[in-house]
Amino acid sequence: QVTSPSGEGTDAVVILEKTPFQEEKVLDLLKKHTKLELQMRNDIYSTYHLYPPPELSEIKTTVVYPATEKHLQKYLRQEVHLIRETWEDYKNITLPFIQSQSFSIQWVYNILEKKAEADRIVHENPDPCNGFVLVPDLKWNQNQLDDLYLIALIHRREVKSLRDLTAEHLLLLRNILQEGKEAITKRFGVPGSQLRIYLHYQPSYYHLHVHFTALGYDAPGSSVERAHLLADVIDNLAMDSMYYQKRALTFALRADELLFKKFQEAGRV
Amino acid sequence: QVTSPSGEGTDAVVILEKTPFQEEKVLDLLKKHTKLELQMRNDIYSTYHLYPPPELSEIKTTVVYPATEKHLQKYLRQEVHLIRETWEDYKNITLPFIQSQSFSIQWVYNILEKKAEADRIVHENPDPCNGFVLVPDLKWNQNQLDDLYLIALIHRREVKSLRDLTAEHLLLLRNILQEGKEAITKRFGVPGSQLRIYLHYQPSYYHLHVHFTALGYDAPGSSVERAHLLADVIDNLAMDSMYYQKRALTFALRADELLFKKFQEAGRV
Repeated sequence: QVTSPSGEGTDAVVILEKTPFQEEKVLDLLKKHTKLELQMRNDIYSTYHLYPPPELSEIKTTVVYPATEKHLQKYLRQEVHLIRETWEDYKNITLPFIQSQSFSIQWVYNILEKKAEADRIVHENPDPCNGFVLVPDLKWNQNQLDDLYLIALIHRREVKSLRDLTAEHLLLLRNILQEGKEAITKRFGVPGSQLRIYLHYQPSYYHLHVHFTALGYDAPGSSVERAHLLADVIDNLAMDSMYYQKRALTFALRADELLFKKFQEAGRV
Repeated sequence: QVTSPSGEGTDAVVILEKTPFQEEKVLDLLKKHTKLELQMRNDIYSTYHLYPPPELSEIKTTVVYPATEKHLQKYLRQEVHLIRETWEDYKNITLPFIQSQSFSIQWVYNILEKKAEADRIVHENPDPCNGFVLVPDLKWNQNQLDDLYLIALIHRREVKSLRDLTAEHLLLLRNILQEGKEAITKRFGVPGSQLRIYLHYQPSYYHLHVHFTALGYDAPGSSVERAHLLADVIDNLAMDSMYYQKRALTFALRADELLFKKFQEAGRV
């Protein structure tokens, strides 16, 4: 994505996107008028630069003109950095930050209390301590299974994130893993072995929840610097109840985020 | 990714990948010899088909020739399932499978012995026990930093994967983390906080190696079911030398892979 201000005193946003290959045109690409330059050869492997004819390399182009300041901000690149948060960092920087923010999670309570989305509930274990509600995530339109995405929200209200978990929560976590898989297989026909089941750290809201996504779906937030497999979390807690109050955890922050500034002020970035 | 068998009785794998835009060439793309076709206009928004000249639309091409059945299988589309491998599963199923296969890693030895790619080495720590070689991955054409991808290959030859690591390897792993970051910052100007540094389990070859990718790049194999952050691996080993000989590990296997069949035969899928 490319942002390019015009020279006219009025800004434009120009978005350039390379498009996926079309299967039926691949043979043309390999045969027709295509310049091929050897780059490197090692054993059975070699790499080339291939320069395709224009008609086989369309770029999807979107123009917003005139563009407002809001359009420009949306497309400007933000620098992202990894933070390695120790338990001391969590206590001294992250936790005070969370407590100082008034993140509203009313929408979570609405679901748990059946004041909203009650008809969307796929499964519920009503136990107030070890129970949870499983609902389709709003990012999933439920039209196809390829991007299947559900969320388990726990009934307990005092567990903010991975950092709060101890062996005390093992029964709850095992219920989510087991019942969540079963409910999704029953309702959507997707076997448990094709579900990626994980927590985010940092989460986008501080009421413990677990993500269920289709294994074949490259879901946003499923990469190693944010996702923690529920099965790993359970094994870590079974091995050491205080695992998540000892171990450093890595996550990415954008340079314009307030929490990033807090880490900067503390000299930890 | 495209697989194309040759007509000669000997198969080849041809992988075609569109590469990210190079910032300094974007103006050329918008100005020079570029055919632009209006597709749609609505208010301030419009979309176009843009057909760039060949020199501005390189396709990175990798050829594996001759390709074995295993190479072909690797690139064919297939159903994928998660395996939760205990240490017993590793000893009884995975390890015998690895030993029964004659995976060729001659290309790794070629690099370590400077018989190939010697001019591509970005950094080397020559210590035979705690040293390594850092080279750009073949997936990266080095034209832009957006998809930066380097690999650290250790000099020791008996460490197959994460499963073999103990506290004995901490010095090696810390060298890779520290020197790898420094070398990449020095050569490419990318700070350590913008590098995702991780191991794969299962790896695609059983000679221990570490991946360095740009944090902003959604690199293949960086999702939670395959990637293990090097910083986490180091902390786990420092906490418990036998961590990776105790803990169950999750990974995805395609239904047509031999290792998947071994897990099936053992009644573990």
